[in-house]
Parts: sequence; structure tokens; C-alpha cells
Amino acid sequence: MIRAVVRKGVGVYGHEFVGFCDGWRGPLEGETVPLDIQAVRGILPRGGTILGSSRTNPLKIEGGVEKIKGNLAEAGVDALIAIGGEDTLGVAKQLFDQGVKVVGVPKTIDNDLNATDYTFGFDTAVNIAVEAIDRLHTTAESHHRALICEVMGRHAGWIALHAGMAGGANVILIPEKPFDIDRVCAYVESRFQTRYAPIIVVAEGAHPIEGQMTLQAGELDAFGHVRLGGIGEMLAKEIEKRTGKEARTTVLGHIQRGGTPTAFDRVLATRFGLQAIDAVHDGEFGVMVALRGTDIVRAGLGEATKELKTVPVGRYEEAEVFFG
Amino acid sequence: MIRAVVRKGVGVYGHEFVGFCDGWRGPLEGETVPLDIQAVRGILPRGGTILGSSRTNPLKIEGGVEKIKGNLAEAGVDALIAIGGEDTLGVAKQLFDQGVKVVGVPKTIDNDLNATDYTFGFDTAVNIAVEAIDRLHTTAESHHRALICEVMGRHAGWIALHAGMAGGANVILIPEKPFDIDRVCAYVESRFQTRYAPIIVVAEGAHPIEGQMTLQAGELDAFGHVRLGGIGEMLAKEIEKRTGKEARTTVLGHIQRGGTPTAFDRVLATRFGLQAIDAVHDGEFGVMVALRGTDIVRAGLGEATKELKTVPVGRYEEAEVFFG
Amino acid sequence: MIRAVVRKGVGVYGHEFVGFCDGWRGPLEGETVPLDIQAVRGILPRGGTILGSSRTNPLKIEGGVEKIKGNLAEAGVDALIAIGGEDTLGVAKQLFDQGVKVVGVPKTIDNDLNATDYTFGFDTAVNIAVEAIDRLHTTAESHHRALICEVMGRHAGWIALHAGMAGGANVILIPEKPFDIDRVCAYVESRFQTRYAPIIVVAEGAHPIEGQMTLQAGELDAFGHVRLGGIGEMLAKEIEKRTGKEARTTVLGHIQRGGTPTAFDRVLATRFGLQAIDAVHDGEFGVMVALRGTDIVRAGLGEATKELKTVPVGRYEEAEVFFG
Amino acid sequence: MIRAVVRKGVGVYGHEFVGFCDGWRGPLEGETVPLDIQAVRGILPRGGTILGSSRTNPLKIEGGVEKIKGNLAEAGVDALIAIGGEDTLGVAKQLFDQGVKVVGVPKTIDNDLNATDYTFGFDTAVNIAVEAIDRLHTTAESHHRALICEVMGRHAGWIALHAGMAGGANVILIPEKPFDIDRVCAYVESRFQTRYAPIIVVAEGAHPIEGQMTLQAGELDAFGHVRLGGIGEMLAKEIEKRTGKEARTTVLGHIQRGGTPTAFDRVLATRFGLQAIDAVHDGEFGVMVALRGTDIVRAGLGEATKELKTVPVGRYEEAEVFFG
Repeated sequence: MIRAVVRKGVGVYGHEFVGFCDGWRGPLEGETVPLDIQAVRGILPRGGTILGSSRTNPLKIEGGVEKIKGNLAEAGVDALIAIGGEDTLGVAKQLFDQGVKVVGVPKTIDNDLNATDYTFGFDTAVNIAVEAIDRLHTTAESHHRALICEVMGRHAGWIALHAGMAGGANVILIPEKPFDIDRVCAYVESRFQTRYAPIIVVAEGAHPIEGQMTLQAGELDAFGHVRLGGIGEMLAKEIEKRTGKEARTTVLGHIQRGGTPTAFDRVLATRFGLQAIDAVHDGEFGVMVALRGTDIVRAGLGEATKELKTVPVGRYEEAEVFFG
Repeated sequence: MIRAVVRKGVGVYGHEFVGFCDGWRGPLEGETVPLDIQAVRGILPRGGTILGSSRTNPLKIEGGVEKIKGNLAEAGVDALIAIGGEDTLGVAKQLFDQGVKVVGVPKTIDNDLNATDYTFGFDTAVNIAVEAIDRLHTTAESHHRALICEVMGRHAGWIALHAGMAGGANVILIPEKPFDIDRVCAYVESRFQTRYAPIIVVAEGAHPIEGQMTLQAGELDAFGHVRLGGIGEMLAKEIEKRTGKEARTTVLGHIQRGGTPTAFDRVLATRFGLQAIDAVHDGEFGVMVALRGTDIVRAGLGEATKELKTVPVGRYEEAEVFFG
Repeated sequence: MIRAVVRKGVGVYGHEFVGFCDGWRGPLEGETVPLDIQAVRGILPRGGTILGSSRTNPLKIEGGVEKIKGNLAEAGVDALIAIGGEDTLGVAKQLFDQGVKVVGVPKTIDNDLNATDYTFGFDTAVNIAVEAIDRLHTTAESHHRALICEVMGRHAGWIALHAGMAGGANVILIPEKPFDIDRVCAYVESRFQTRYAPIIVVAEGAHPIEGQMTLQAGELDAFGHVRLGGIGEMLAKEIEKRTGKEARTTVLGHIQRGGTPTAFDRVLATRFGLQAIDAVHDGEFGVMVALRGTDIVRAGLGEATKELKTVPVGRYEEAEVFFG
Repeated sequence: MIRAVVRKGVGVYGHEFVGFCDGWRGPLEGETVPLDIQAVRGILPRGGTILGSSRTNPLKIEGGVEKIKGNLAEAGVDALIAIGGEDTLGVAKQLFDQGVKVVGVPKTIDNDLNATDYTFGFDTAVNIAVEAIDRLHTTAESHHRALICEVMGRHAGWIALHAGMAGGANVILIPEKPFDIDRVCAYVESRFQTRYAPIIVVAEGAHPIEGQMTLQAGELDAFGHVRLGGIGEMLAKEIEKRTGKEARTTVLGHIQRGGTPTAFDRVLATRFGLQAIDAVHDGEFGVMVALRGTDIVRAGLGEATKELKTVPVGRYEEAEVFFG
């Protein structure tokens, strides 16, 4: 993405670039790094971001927006390209409303942004999860254990849905639909009737119907997140207690964020970058670049961030055909 | 795909299935295999097809269509789901016009079918090619050779375009646009000015502007195909002759067709399968299931097959920003 | 392995084979499956075992050995090839001592068998773990969190040692050497001084110097195992408490057992299989096939199973050069 | 490797390092790059070499050795660590004989160096080839074509042998044993009797029994190499002519040299590096670090380079069990 912006911005439009480090911390503190053709060489096959990230939210800091405007002016920045998910682009929207020239780029493995078919990072995360599930199938064929794979997704079950469908999971549990532990155990027991063991894909934010599980959900940690290992581990214990079968959990955690991006994500990111710099060149701000079918278009930042894009009922029902 | 059709067809609609072997050879000769839930177990992570394929074209065989109609009736088949690319679905269209109840599913690594955003098999092929290009970069950093990667694509450059863009190729050559060998050599020589060697991605069907290359194109072989190794090998020799630099060619060939499908392709194939059996259930024939954005829809077989979907000029120009 | 035994046994020596299912449960209960050339077709790229596994230990079952001898005789079995780790081959040794013609094959991802350079399954498990660690590096470059990767190894730290060394971990913790949590936290804090976050690879059986950690170790579960997620999760909490930095854990669990085996493991397994059937043909029993350098040899089952092969001090010190 | 040398050399022994660029060209021309801890950060998961390579042979250049000695002295170099295959280490041996303090490290994908069980780079190359062969199996199951995979190995068939054995090839052809085209075609035809198509792995240096093939071998190119595509392509044409079946060739070429190294190669390279700097520290020169079983030892450069390590007859016969 950054590579495409810089390559076209420098090569075609003659722009200059600086990179702000660590998400909104960079613009807030005015910390920049040089971003020229040389700086973006070789980054295509690398995941993550060469600029770092943080959870800093300038809207929660007194005078945050003014500081950013000041730092942008001081660095001689005409326009800002903001790359990230709901939080990042929500801030971008606020900055635009207060006069900053912003173009947004949807990047999050959670795929939970509206106004775009996909965000980049999602396809890579799904493939990593599918690879893990494929490997669990080997064990499922020879060992007699329920295998649980906990994937990312606190509020939206996109990774679980796609990875579970692609991986041939016997059950998929997503945050959008509280699950019935009795039904999950029924699937587990019916699967054990065949010579294969069940594989359950669970989003970290999935949860049972209220009051149904006797074990307590992982409490929030000091950083406001459900502890990794929470629901997958809980589910394993609950299944063991109820069915008498062994259950084992794999927690993918941060490996879903990293590694070499897929071709889909690289093409998407590259085309997003080209469109973002075109938007800047055209002077069209307050927009997010977005995928619609095979086209890269521009959507309003407001439309993109007004609510989370969660898994629709129909898509989940589609997957349920394969449960059990 | 087949798994999804059978799982939903048997589990939800109560249908029964037989598989016809080896493309159109199966229906022509009435050769079937049983297709029940058991037969489709474990095929999700496998590429290719459990039913085999062939180049048999019933339209070129006297009485071919009648034979197929007879064999379908004899096997008690109410509706036919045809899976394949332009050739397969072209035949499906003809059969539909002659009264056979057909639903088509777009499967080809070439991605050259109209009416759908993507065909399945394409994403996997592109990822395999990108992986190869990534590996060439290692050599490009340490050896001083032009590296050529020949990918599939006789008439459409989709694989070359996506793989080249995702892989950071220095030049991409596609069948849709005859290339200028002088310009290719200029890119090669300018790239050698940096400490990296150039990587060229070339579709097997790419060709130079007429009369420009002194070496002859690979003649058609006994099966009517350009010999693998043709254009990549020719290009290597031409570049060596013109620039004095060593050039080496990798010919991916059939490895692009195989192996474990990507998550994207598996989800796409699964959803295509669900839509195909729904179309059958709805009694809607003469259609091809298709991807539009994130939706699976039905398109007319005629629309899908009337002409090849080639790479539009705009998409190629997008990629040219990164040439050199 | 099984494929090589059957291919050479049938093709060269004219033997016939049956497979006993689910580890020692099969011979105990006399449950067999046919094992001919057809049964072993296509299994090379698949991990796991086509015969299943279990934890059944015939030595702990009254009259277990006699039952096995009876079932072998009844099935017309002249010789038994036992495939597995310490437990399986320990039983094989006992059976041999009681007159059963046994040849052992060392298969365990833990690599903890004496008398062989490597067991098969180990190289694949290490590569899977390294792939995960590589992906964590992406996050470590952009997020500011300590990343913990828990790998298998209850008694021996081979996977952690090799994966940690190959993955460039900042600290590796193995069961053979109780760790000093103060030193671990010191590495974590010094690493945060650079722009990269620390990556810690921990074997599931690693543990702190006695009394040092305030959190309790995961209690044994109903099946006698430390709960997955135990030490990795504990370590994360302890690091957060002591350093004030966020820590995140990935628990690889059973994905290390599965998937497509590496070339090293496939060649090793194939050559083990050839040597095993040769030993049977030569009438040499009570041996385990073993790798020594590039040769496949035969070692006494007693030598192989008398004690666990753990990581020697020297190998761990080698790795410590890269800590911090 | 370089990382391990520098990390231990700087961190433990307090040495300083410079890197010579592009193989022997660097020492000859006195071109160096700085090599400190910072320079080797992040190179572990990358294949290839950060120092570049060339075919420059100082022994063929008048006064070459003297120039190197002069440049080493001028750069203040006390000892030289030479990394490479037969050519590189042959030069290292000559330099040592003429008084230069040299330690060699065996790095070549060809695995053709004596005195070490394996060279590093080999395991990665084999895995890449196996991945390709696995993918060809998909096509072999559904299409009716002979599939040929040409791998590296001009003088030694190690890659072909290991990749072919691990990939389940139906025939493996290596330079050490001229092949009988009639026998190859017999395997091809017998394989077509099953429902699978044959897969042939051929080393680029393999060749038929003299006079047997009617097509001419690829002539040497301007750089003294058999053209890539040579034997694989020839074989395809010959098989088509003799059997009437279609044959398709994949030429892996330089993709075998690159990409992320396997865990085996990374551990091996790291341990080679540690041993190399230890040898320097111990003042033991004229040696090559080497793998023997699980130990890293030192062998004489003379022993290592006196003749090529080719595939022994016994290893090839082992593989022949699986032919056909």
C-alpha cells in the first residue's frame, strides 16, 4: 500500500512523502520518518507495517486534534493518508470534519468496515487460519479428541466464518450469534460416531447463550481485552465436562496478523494505494478507498465508519449446512 | 464445489447424485461414479477435481448432443451441473439450447469468463506464481541475472497481471498487448543499474510486436498448444543477445493448477456449489453461478461465454506504474 | 513409512500385510485393516497416520501381552513393525523380550528417542513452529507487545530449541532447564529498548525456578496432561505484571502434529520403512531403525528406550548466544 | 550463517567484521561493506546472501591471490570466512595453501561437498521441489499427461533423488546414471494403466544412454551452461513421440535457490556460523565446518574439495523400489 502510494506519488505526480510512526502517536508527537522510493523497496512480501502502530487515540487527548493539525503544518504536509481499521478511520473522519485533508485506506484483518467488499489483511489472516485447520484435520483423523481453533474476531466473525468454511470445520462460532452449548456438544458427539474427530472454529469474541456455561468467561485484562485463550480454553473444558471426550485448543493469536501477505491482499493493497494517491491528486478528501467487485472506488469516510460490518444472518446460515 | 453441491443437495433437498468422469467424455460415454456424502469427504483441501477432465468436445462429435441426452436419461439424471471454463460452459450453453437442464459453475485458473468477478482456481494459481516470484527475488538480490517467470495464460493475462503486481515484477508481459522488446531490454538494463536484477513475468501467450524478435516462436505441438517453455525461453535468449546479460527462465507449467487451494478459492467454490444446487432446486437452468462483489448470483450462460474476458487496458496501465 | 514398508515388502519380498488400528488397541483387540499397495497410494504428502493412534498400554492391562500374542497368531502375523515414540517402543521392547518378533520405527514429533539422530515428525513440527514465529516477527516490528509462542515438548525441549534458534527468538525456555523469570523479564525489557518487541519460545513443559512465579502452574487435567495454554499463558501474565508491558500468547497445540510433512521427514520415513522391512526380511528383531549421519542403521530397542533423549547443556548454551 | 558469525564474534569474542561483496570479486577488488549487529538483523528468514555472489575465480586471474592478500591486509583482516560450494571452497583451499587464514563454510543447494553430511541450502531446495511435485500430483490425478519436473543438479543428483523420493515420483533421473529412454517410456505407459498420470523428476544434468535419444541435447550457452529447460523439454518431446501421450514440463530453475529457508537449513547455517567463528577464535585454519550426525565439526578443506560428492549407487537403488 505504502509502496504503491510512494511509487506513483513520486514517480507520476512528483509528490514528496513523510511517514508518521506508530499510528496516531506519530502525528500527535510530530515524529516522522523519510518515505522515499528507497524506503519502500522490498516491502511488498512483508506483512505488517513499516510505520509501526499504537492504540493512541487523539480524540481522547485534550487538544489532540489541534496538535495534529499543528504538526502536519510544521512538517509541510498537505494531505494525510490514514491506514487502518474502524478506530483509525473514525479518527480520520473527525480530523476531516475539522478541516484536515484526509484520505482513508481500509486495513484490518477483521474485515469489519462498511463500504468496501474487503479490507486488506483479511485474506492473509483467513489463509493462515485455514492452514492451521488443515493441520488439525491430520490429528482429527488419527487421534480421538475434539479440536478447537480460536481465531481473531472480537466483534465480527468474518475470520471464523471464512476459515471455518474453507477449512471444513464441523462447527463455527461467531460473536454475532450466541451459541447453544448443548447443540455444540451434540455436534461433537455425532461427529465422534464417524472415524473423525470434530473440529470447532471459534472467534475470540464468541460467547454462549447467557447463563448456559458453568465456567466463567475470561475477565478483561489490564488492557481492556478478553484474554487470548479465553473462549477456546473455556469451550474445551466445557466439552470435556459434558461429553467426557478430550478436547484440545489451539490459539492462533498474533500469527494471524503477520507473515507474507497473500496475492489477493498484495494486489488489493497496491490498488488501494494507487487510488489513494489519485484521490489526493484529485483533491478529493474525506473519502476511503474501497473495493467494489473488481473495481477500486472512493466511499465517504462517514459511510465506512458509522457502524461495524458484522456477518449477516444469511452468510452464517449458508455455513450451517456443513455443521455436524 | 462438488462437496457443497452434494452436502446441501443430499442433506437439505434430498437429491441423489452421480458424477460423470473426465469432463464431457463421461456424459458422452455414460461413464459415472457414485457421488454421495462419503465420496466427497476430505476433498476440501485438495485442488483439481475428483472427477477427472478431458478435452473431449461433444459438439465436434457427430450425434454428440443426442448421445449425452440419452445417457442422462438412462442414468435418471434430471439436471446437469457443468463445471469448467470457456470450453466446458460453451458446450453447456449448447446443451441447454437443446433442452438439457444445465447449471454452470465457472472454474478455470485463467479467470477469463465474463459475468463473474472471479472464477475459482484463479486465486490459487496466482498465489503459486507469487510464491515463485518471491523466491526469484532472493536470487535477484545476490546474482546478476535477468530472471524470467513464465506463467499460464494463452489468451488472457490475468495470472501474469496479478502475480506480477503482487510479486513486484519489473515488467509484466500479457497476450492482450504485444510487447516492445526494445522497451523490455531498456527496463532490464536500467534495473541492472541498481543492485537488484530484473524479474520479468510473462504469460505463455504473450508475444512481441510483429517482426521484432529474431528468434522464432515455439511452433504448435501435436496437441495444438504452444510448447511450454516457448516465450520465456525465447525471451531469455533475446535478452542475452541484446543486453549481454545472463537471463534464466522458470516455467511454472502445471504446478499452477494444483496443490491445496487458497481460502478464497475454497470459500468461492463452496458458495458456488450451494448456489448451483439452489438453482437446480429452483428449476432455474441455463445459468452460471457467478461472483458479484461479495454476493453469489446467477448469470446467463450466454452472457458468460459470448466472449473471453481479457485484461482491460486500464488494469494493465495501473501495473505499468511499477515497471522498470 | 507404511507406504515404503508395503511397497518394498509386497513388491520385492512378496510379503503380505495387515494394519493394526489405533496404536496398541488394535493388536490387543485384534482389529485389523487391509494394507496392500492400493491402501498406501497417495499417503506420502499426508501427515499423521492412516492407522490411527491411542494411549492404550497393553503392559498396564492384565494379560495384555498374551492377548497380543494370541491376536498376532490368529491373524497369521509373523512379525510386527511398531511405529511410535518412547511409549510405543517401550511396549515393543517388552513384547520382544517375551518372544514377539518386533522391529521398531522411531516416530514422534518430540525427537526424544535415543539411538537415532532424529525421529520422523520432528522436522515437520519444527518447521510449523518456525513459520508461526516468522509471522510473529511481523507483529513484533509494528506492535509493542511481548509475544510468546508455546510449542510442544513436555519433557524434552527439542522443538523449542530448534524452532527458537531457527526463528530468531529472543529467549528459549525448555523443560531441561528451569528458567529464571527475572532474567526473562530483563531480556524482555532490554529488547523493548530497540524498536522490536521480544519473542519468547516456550516448551509446554518448561517451568520456572521453584517458588519464583506467583501464579500457579496449570493443574493436571483429567487425562494427566498439563493443560495446553498453561505455561505460555502464565508467562504472559507474569511478564505483564512485572514489566508493565502487554504480552500475548500463541499456543500452537495440535497444529504441530499435522499437515504435509517436510521433505526431510518424508525421505527419513521412507528410508526407515525400507530398512524396517529389510530387518524383518533378514530376521533381525528387537531392533529399532535409526538415522546415523546419512545412514539408516539398526539399533537395539533397549538402547533406544532406556532413557529419554533430552537437550544437552551444550546445545542450549549454543542458543543462548542469541538471547536478549 | 553470517548473522551467527557476527552475533557471536562481536558479542562473545569482541571481533569486528567486514563483508566482501559478490563472492571472490569483493576480496579481489577490495570492495567491502560494514558487517555489524545492525547489518545482520532480520536476515534469518531470508534466503540467499546479503553479500551477493559472482563467478569470479581469482585463480584464473593473473596475480589474483596476491591481490586478495593485499586487500585483506589493507582492510586489516586477520582471518577470512569463505562461504560457498565446491568452487568457492576450492579457491579457499588454494588461498590457505598460500598463507591466508581461511575457514570454509559449506553452502550450496547441490549438496555435493564431501566431509559434511549436508550443505546448507540443500534442504530448502528439496522442499521447494517437493512442493512443486505435490502440486503436479493434483494434475496427474485429473489430466492424462506425463508430467516432468526438471530440478537443479548438473553433476550430482541429490535434489532429484530426495525430491523425487519425497514427492513420490514414478521415475527419477540423475546425472550419475545415464538413463534408458525405453525403460522410462515403459514406466510411463504402465503408469497410464492406472488412473494416475506419471510424474518424472529429472536433474538438469541427467542424460540418456549415449546415442539413444534422437533429439539433440541443449547446446552450451554463451555462459558455459546447459540451457535451463534442456533435458526436461527434450524428454517431454521424446516421450510424446514414443508413447503418443502428451507430456508437460515444469522447469523450477532459480526458484530453488530462494525464498525463506527451512528450519533445518537455518539451524544448520546458524550452527555452522558459530563453529566457524569458534575455529577462527581457536586459530584453526584451512578447515571447513561440517555436519556429522548431529554434531558440527571441522574437516580439512582438502578433504572437502578433492572430489564431488555424488549420489552413491545404493541410494539410487533404494529409490528405484518406487519406480513405475
